[in-house]
Amino acid sequence: MTIYVINPNSSQLITDGIDRAVDPMRSAAPVPIEARTLAEGPPGIETQAHVDGVVAPMLAHCAALEENASAFVVACYSDPGLAALREQSNHPVLGIAEASILTAMTLGQRFGIISILSTSIPRHMRYLGAMGVMDRLAGDHPLELGVAELADETRTFERLKSVGAHLRDTARADVAILGCAGMTAFRTDLETHLGIPVVEPCQAATAMAIGRVALQKTR
Amino acid sequence: MTIYVINPNSSQLITDGIDRAVDPMRSAAPVPIEARTLAEGPPGIETQAHVDGVVAPMLAHCAALEENASAFVVACYSDPGLAALREQSNHPVLGIAEASILTAMTLGQRFGIISILSTSIPRHMRYLGAMGVMDRLAGDHPLELGVAELADETRTFERLKSVGAHLRDTARADVAILGCAGMTAFRTDLETHLGIPVVEPCQAATAMAIGRVALQKTR
Amino acid sequence: MTIYVINPNSSQLITDGIDRAVDPMRSAAPVPIEARTLAEGPPGIETQAHVDGVVAPMLAHCAALEENASAFVVACYSDPGLAALREQSNHPVLGIAEASILTAMTLGQRFGIISILSTSIPRHMRYLGAMGVMDRLAGDHPLELGVAELADETRTFERLKSVGAHLRDTARADVAILGCAGMTAFRTDLETHLGIPVVEPCQAATAMAIGRVALQKTR
Amino acid sequence: MTIYVINPNSSQLITDGIDRAVDPMRSAAPVPIEARTLAEGPPGIETQAHVDGVVAPMLAHCAALEENASAFVVACYSDPGLAALREQSNHPVLGIAEASILTAMTLGQRFGIISILSTSIPRHMRYLGAMGVMDRLAGDHPLELGVAELADETRTFERLKSVGAHLRDTARADVAILGCAGMTAFRTDLETHLGIPVVEPCQAATAMAIGRVALQKTR
Amino acid sequence: MTIYVINPNSSQLITDGIDRAVDPMRSAAPVPIEARTLAEGPPGIETQAHVDGVVAPMLAHCAALEENASAFVVACYSDPGLAALREQSNHPVLGIAEASILTAMTLGQRFGIISILSTSIPRHMRYLGAMGVMDRLAGDHPLELGVAELADETRTFERLKSVGAHLRDTARADVAILGCAGMTAFRTDLETHLGIPVVEPCQAATAMAIGRVALQKTR
Amino acid sequence: MTIYVINPNSSQLITDGIDRAVDPMRSAAPVPIEARTLAEGPPGIETQAHVDGVVAPMLAHCAALEENASAFVVACYSDPGLAALREQSNHPVLGIAEASILTAMTLGQRFGIISILSTSIPRHMRYLGAMGVMDRLAGDHPLELGVAELADETRTFERLKSVGAHLRDTARADVAILGCAGMTAFRTDLETHLGIPVVEPCQAATAMAIGRVALQKTR
Repeated sequence: MTIYVINPNSSQLITDGIDRAVDPMRSAAPVPIEARTLAEGPPGIETQAHVDGVVAPMLAHCAALEENASAFVVACYSDPGLAALREQSNHPVLGIAEASILTAMTLGQRFGIISILSTSIPRHMRYLGAMGVMDRLAGDHPLELGVAELADETRTFERLKSVGAHLRDTARADVAILGCAGMTAFRTDLETHLGIPVVEPCQAATAMAIGRVALQKTR
Repeated sequence: MTIYVINPNSSQLITDGIDRAVDPMRSAAPVPIEARTLAEGPPGIETQAHVDGVVAPMLAHCAALEENASAFVVACYSDPGLAALREQSNHPVLGIAEASILTAMTLGQRFGIISILSTSIPRHMRYLGAMGVMDRLAGDHPLELGVAELADETRTFERLKSVGAHLRDTARADVAILGCAGMTAFRTDLETHLGIPVVEPCQAATAMAIGRVALQKTR
Repeated sequence: MTIYVINPNSSQLITDGIDRAVDPMRSAAPVPIEARTLAEGPPGIETQAHVDGVVAPMLAHCAALEENASAFVVACYSDPGLAALREQSNHPVLGIAEASILTAMTLGQRFGIISILSTSIPRHMRYLGAMGVMDRLAGDHPLELGVAELADETRTFERLKSVGAHLRDTARADVAILGCAGMTAFRTDLETHLGIPVVEPCQAATAMAIGRVALQKTR
Repeated sequence: MTIYVINPNSSQLITDGIDRAVDPMRSAAPVPIEARTLAEGPPGIETQAHVDGVVAPMLAHCAALEENASAFVVACYSDPGLAALREQSNHPVLGIAEASILTAMTLGQRFGIISILSTSIPRHMRYLGAMGVMDRLAGDHPLELGVAELADETRTFERLKSVGAHLRDTARADVAILGCAGMTAFRTDLETHLGIPVVEPCQAATAMAIGRVALQKTR
Repeated sequence: MTIYVINPNSSQLITDGIDRAVDPMRSAAPVPIEARTLAEGPPGIETQAHVDGVVAPMLAHCAALEENASAFVVACYSDPGLAALREQSNHPVLGIAEASILTAMTLGQRFGIISILSTSIPRHMRYLGAMGVMDRLAGDHPLELGVAELADETRTFERLKSVGAHLRDTARADVAILGCAGMTAFRTDLETHLGIPVVEPCQAATAMAIGRVALQKTR
Repeated sequence: MTIYVINPNSSQLITDGIDRAVDPMRSAAPVPIEARTLAEGPPGIETQAHVDGVVAPMLAHCAALEENASAFVVACYSDPGLAALREQSNHPVLGIAEASILTAMTLGQRFGIISILSTSIPRHMRYLGAMGVMDRLAGDHPLELGVAELADETRTFERLKSVGAHLRDTARADVAILGCAGMTAFRTDLETHLGIPVVEPCQAATAMAIGRVALQKTR
């Protein structure tokens, strides 16, 4: 039985980053954790059509894994297909956006989200509204870097520091969330720099999945 | 130029009902109104997977109509693909759920929604949260009839009366919304029976689309 | 039968601006649109006493038009007497503040309002609260120009650009609303300048009224 | 200097009830308390047009009292003209709806409102939304008795007991508010009957006004 | 290193129930899980004074465990001292109320809470408000049984079934939460009976703690 | 009979400031007002552990005063023990945070809070959420001065002016609240400087207590 972390875009680089991000948790997990790439996905999920478009292949992908799964993690910050996968699967299903927000709600009173693009923000706002947690949001600010552009680590980290400081000092966030699965490499350094907790959503969701696998044993 | 009302399920019966529902508005509309069936859709949209699954074919369907379109109406109460179609099209795009709620907000202070199934309700709640209008909701109650079952008009109307009365008297709704594109036939009779405004969402969205076509002329 | 757009202040200049703003819509409207001045109103509606004071004469004015009306639009951004006129009239009644907000909710996720004076803002906040849509508000910022001062078009447009940019960039609005019936002349230019949709409320409400006149045909 | 409690309807019976309700507080008040009838008001305020229509005469009435006033209380549960009177007067101005709600917020976590008519409820909902306190509302239920009908004390008290019990047991209110200035006579008996705090709004607002008169001495 | 689950009341019976409830999770946990009784606590935490009163001894109790702790779980549904313990400890700290609510938010759209006493409910409402999740609440209904009375298992289960059904059918909850640490024995049977997910809060918080212990390894 | 204003920290200087702040109200109060120091409290209440820790001694302190009390005011901006004291006492109990917020809600539409430390703000946010009034908050900004540091009046007033102006101009507060019992000396000067109402919470709560003592006479 395995916790499957599904990267619904087709970028193996992103999947590799997720794999590295969750690797330290493997020693504490009761089951293996496997990061997978959705071959049918676009290179990056940057529009609503991307979000909606990956649902059907992702559901098929996960259906094929159902028998061997302990839990599923949807590893895109738009949580594509989360509700549909919950309807389909008998296992715990977590989305990295939802899980990161719920985790942040235990680490601070007002969370800030660092998004890739300003066009992501309306999508996030709809999602926070659907979750009913708008009163806990301090702000959501963009790096203005697309998924592919995150690979320039120097520039990305500069922007992360600047946007993170703005969320902390002006929007008064007391916890920050990395709003894309492609920022895994920066969590520790950014937390050190900012001095407030920084949540990496793939890690947060996988941690929650580990707990759920344990919880399933009580059922 | 045409207002296209897209039924994203494949039931021609539903499309025919929509066509009849908007027919009286044609004389007041500045452009033709055409109700269309999405052949690729399921017979009824009853799960989140149905909702997500129709987005891609619907976007393709609408892309082919873009050049001749004045406006698009997405005629399913889950507003599938609404955000994606807005990103894709240069024309006004309205969803029947959103439009019916915005319309109800001008006809009463607290709206009640009559859903087909109780499994639809969590989806509606997420949507109302995303719209940020939960404080205007009186309640959302199901007929416990699937899309196909709505065709039994006697039974459907009995349930509509009973659920509608419950929303009015117990949940204290002062306006009711028919929460499915398959209930077009009942609006007038139900409004007469309940004595509070009843909004049929295909009509509400098409009315709003007519206004938007007029508004486009100021741009 | 006519859509009456009632300017509840006594400034014919404002009424003329409204008339010009809705003029392009006339070719798409099923009935005539007539902009009217409430002679009993103050030159500009800038205080709560102004708002409350125009209700009685406006109700009388509209009662006299009831028989020939298809719909009423209350064309002041405080929507004076909107609830009372709805109780009085058998026709659709729309207010420009409410209609502009509902329209903006279909064009973006977070709307910004450009007010004339900072003293208008508490009134707007009460109204947004009453509408239950505070979670969709990005911000409400004033030009600090009274109704009469709007006539200096150069100064007004400078302020509109500056306040609009602040709403877009700092408050993160993705759609802007002109928060006074006296800014009709600036919508197109401001939208071009800002690069996000700009809603002129008299146009938005009249568009919605045109839709409602069509919708009435289904009743 | 005097605390003026203005009954904006023209029913002296209601004013007399208010006078009796606040009479025990006179011994504890630093200034006289005078209940006054607005001669220009309707016999009862039951529609939005009534609410809006009394504002202008009430403002004039209060302007004439300004020089001798310590504070004003607007004694109608729709708080007509509250914002306008605050703009006009240099003294503390309290409305009985607002004050009763703020008082109830210190006596329980969820308040229930007992309204006269179901047509009052949308008005109350708009007001609670404007106050931003919808999350504290347990429910608002009507007696279905007009202002004049409240005079039949036996029937009124029967309805109060029944609606109050429903708010307590079904809507889970832990404090109840009498939603009309014409129910002053019933507070004590209803509180005894229900076993939860019952707030009479004229008393609550006058109590708050007494505090404000004391507070003014610190300015 | 150990996950300490602190029962802040002094009833060993409750602690034993918690121990049994989390026992199946031990095989999946990376560290031992130890349920402890706060000797200084009252037999049951039923008033706000109880809640506030256990904070100081619980902080001292946990300070003595800090060096050996992997995480702390506060096992009382009022989450006494949660914020204070977070300020004191360097380890993850979870409260059973908060964790059960966050868990329920991933299992359904509207959660219902089954409380012991109606006097618990205002405390819960304040807490849900502080968490900013009121829009996700379907209802909170009491068994009207004190902590000690829960020991009568037949009566307790009868009440649980009745209150749970009411939350599901009338309040329209799609997930239920057991609102006291003393109901551990009933989760499975109640879930089977109701047909919707039932969250036992000690299990939910311990599951989340297991995940956090894994997450700490990434830091 | 006496209104007891309990300073739950042990700083007599703070108590003396409270005494001076409420002194002008004594001539308007129906009973004596006595400011008391809780000897068992810490010198300043700056952490959640401080807040929770003073509850038990404060309850004991107030129990001894119960027989002679007309009302209690808890004079710390975290309102420690407010709910517990309400459960214990038969008299009106007011907290300075709650009372200042309710008062501010009648003086403006959006209140700003001036806190001592940024670590106070999450605690305030939880409290505003529990009160259900987040939509009325403009912002909460810190002086970054501890309780003891407030004694440097020149520096404190400089910071108050700067933070107050920021709340007024950037956060768009139209009323400001002094978020600590140790700022009593600055209210008048700050109000003059800012030009918007400034609420001193000990005064606001005592004023409300005076009203409640009067209100008790109607019971």
